[in-house]
Amino acid sequence: MQPPYLLFLGDVQDQLAAKTARGIVDWRPDWVVGQLRLEGCKADIGVPDRSIDEARGEGAGTLVLGVVNSGGTMPEHWAGTIVAAIEAGMDVMSGLHMRLSDVPAIKAAADRHGAELLDVRHPTRTFRTGTGKKRTGRRILAVGTDCSCGKKYTALAMEAALRARGLKADFRATGQTGIMIATRGVAVDAVVADFISGAVEWLTPDNDPDHYDCVEGQGSLFHPAFAGVSLGLLHGAQPDFLILCHEPTRTHMRGLPHQPLPDLETCLETNLQLARLTNPDVRPLGLSINTSNLSKDEAHAYLKAVSDEMNLPAVDHFLTGMDALVDALP
Amino acid sequence: MQPPYLLFLGDVQDQLAAKTARGIVDWRPDWVVGQLRLEGCKADIGVPDRSIDEARGEGAGTLVLGVVNSGGTMPEHWAGTIVAAIEAGMDVMSGLHMRLSDVPAIKAAADRHGAELLDVRHPTRTFRTGTGKKRTGRRILAVGTDCSCGKKYTALAMEAALRARGLKADFRATGQTGIMIATRGVAVDAVVADFISGAVEWLTPDNDPDHYDCVEGQGSLFHPAFAGVSLGLLHGAQPDFLILCHEPTRTHMRGLPHQPLPDLETCLETNLQLARLTNPDVRPLGLSINTSNLSKDEAHAYLKAVSDEMNLPAVDHFLTGMDALVDALP
Repeated sequence: MQPPYLLFLGDVQDQLAAKTARGIVDWRPDWVVGQLRLEGCKADIGVPDRSIDEARGEGAGTLVLGVVNSGGTMPEHWAGTIVAAIEAGMDVMSGLHMRLSDVPAIKAAADRHGAELLDVRHPTRTFRTGTGKKRTGRRILAVGTDCSCGKKYTALAMEAALRARGLKADFRATGQTGIMIATRGVAVDAVVADFISGAVEWLTPDNDPDHYDCVEGQGSLFHPAFAGVSLGLLHGAQPDFLILCHEPTRTHMRGLPHQPLPDLETCLETNLQLARLTNPDVRPLGLSINTSNLSKDEAHAYLKAVSDEMNLPAVDHFLTGMDALVDALP
Repeated sequence: MQPPYLLFLGDVQDQLAAKTARGIVDWRPDWVVGQLRLEGCKADIGVPDRSIDEARGEGAGTLVLGVVNSGGTMPEHWAGTIVAAIEAGMDVMSGLHMRLSDVPAIKAAADRHGAELLDVRHPTRTFRTGTGKKRTGRRILAVGTDCSCGKKYTALAMEAALRARGLKADFRATGQTGIMIATRGVAVDAVVADFISGAVEWLTPDNDPDHYDCVEGQGSLFHPAFAGVSLGLLHGAQPDFLILCHEPTRTHMRGLPHQPLPDLETCLETNLQLARLTNPDVRPLGLSINTSNLSKDEAHAYLKAVSDEMNLPAVDHFLTGMDALVDALP
């Protein structure tokens, strides 16, 4: 998994579908030589358009499928571009549910050219079942009211903020985009159910007493599809500190118009209650709010109101930075 | 998956390791022609010992690996017996984590003789992610303070008790032994984590308004290894009624000496609290206690005490039958 990357967006129809590429650009801009878009692509992640040859000339070693789409499969007509990248000497990395090698033309090209096909969503190792035994070091977990509300960005921003203070910190990736950013991690939603917490225990092992793991959460305890993943991750991470992530304009759980969002207090209390199984000393650190859909004035007003209501610091790392959360650490 | 079965116990060293075979004998005695044990086997499930040829003569079509072992793998020296069964014309069914076809000699024999190799723990289909949308019909879910405390037996006993009253009921299997008993189901602990609740939604679909699904629970919300599975199953089953299962002599969570058991009230309340996400009307039906480690007098005293304390009917189906729980249905 060697940067730099050429980010392939295919011909996806909106910006959200390119969120994997967007995450890499936001957090590892130095690793990106450009974007490769097919005709009709409606996403633009604000980096130069590059052909395969141009990207190779600038040192790109890996073509990254920087997209998510429901179902996790790849349109057939993307295969030609991927084969061309392989023929130009690149490896290929994908976060889709389907494996790159399931496309015969891609597999054949990779075999022919000795290219690596990295399906970061698929665990390459086996795990033990969890034990809940206390580990050394400190762990901060980003949990959420819903999917896609800022947990990954929050964990990455905490890593950066802690390191900026000279503290020891590592982002721990639990999803495909996070893995591409960290070059390691486990896509916990793709692990066999019996091993969710065990995989997270492996991901966040014993560490120095003053070291912080900044663990990316997944889903929400209040999402009917994914709460099992969220709970296994919560138990496996055995967090010392929780950061609750929220997107305040959302009107229902992602993908489920019939399912209301939990209120912040219920969501935080439930996470704390269940986290105590593997760490009785868990405590809330603060709130991380994705205010990107609010005006600046609205955002500041919301942060103040929610901070007063919950009696916890509230940040949006794009707007305020993370200092208030770092300051809240004991 | 066609009965009758010859139950293969290998040379396991205790009765507990034969609990899959025991479950089949307890619930589907008519499907069992006998047990096949290797030299040194210390388990005996109380059915006649039969050779492969004898079993074939009595109509057995399937050799069932009726054992569980930690790790879910098969000792190499069992392969010869399995190959002999295939050569005698039998199919083979296993609930182990490893696949039968991963043993080259078994795969070759099956290919040669056209035998079916059934790994019931491995889903043979894909699932959608859960939605939490309300389905028709009634659902009873057996939940537990721990693993292996009677959830499967409770769900099977409820199916039998409801049918004995002329009511429509189906046991819904969520683990390997249950699947062998029901000849269908999903081993939810072997599903990819993203699809736990979706798999259970598929398993317990819309049904007649007066039909009961009796759903086998898995693990416990208070087990650090498996709570994610338990929560996804709870959300996917969207139960109308919970039966809390408990083994009163257990001193710690199964396999984890450092992990205490939850008290019954906390366990029931937490299950109800989290179940409300997909069924706000969920209610407790009663307690199902595995009193097999108590004397009869102790057992009756315990059932009365716990029933008074929780203000719910308490049964042990071997001791009291399930009538008190059926009577508690509205």
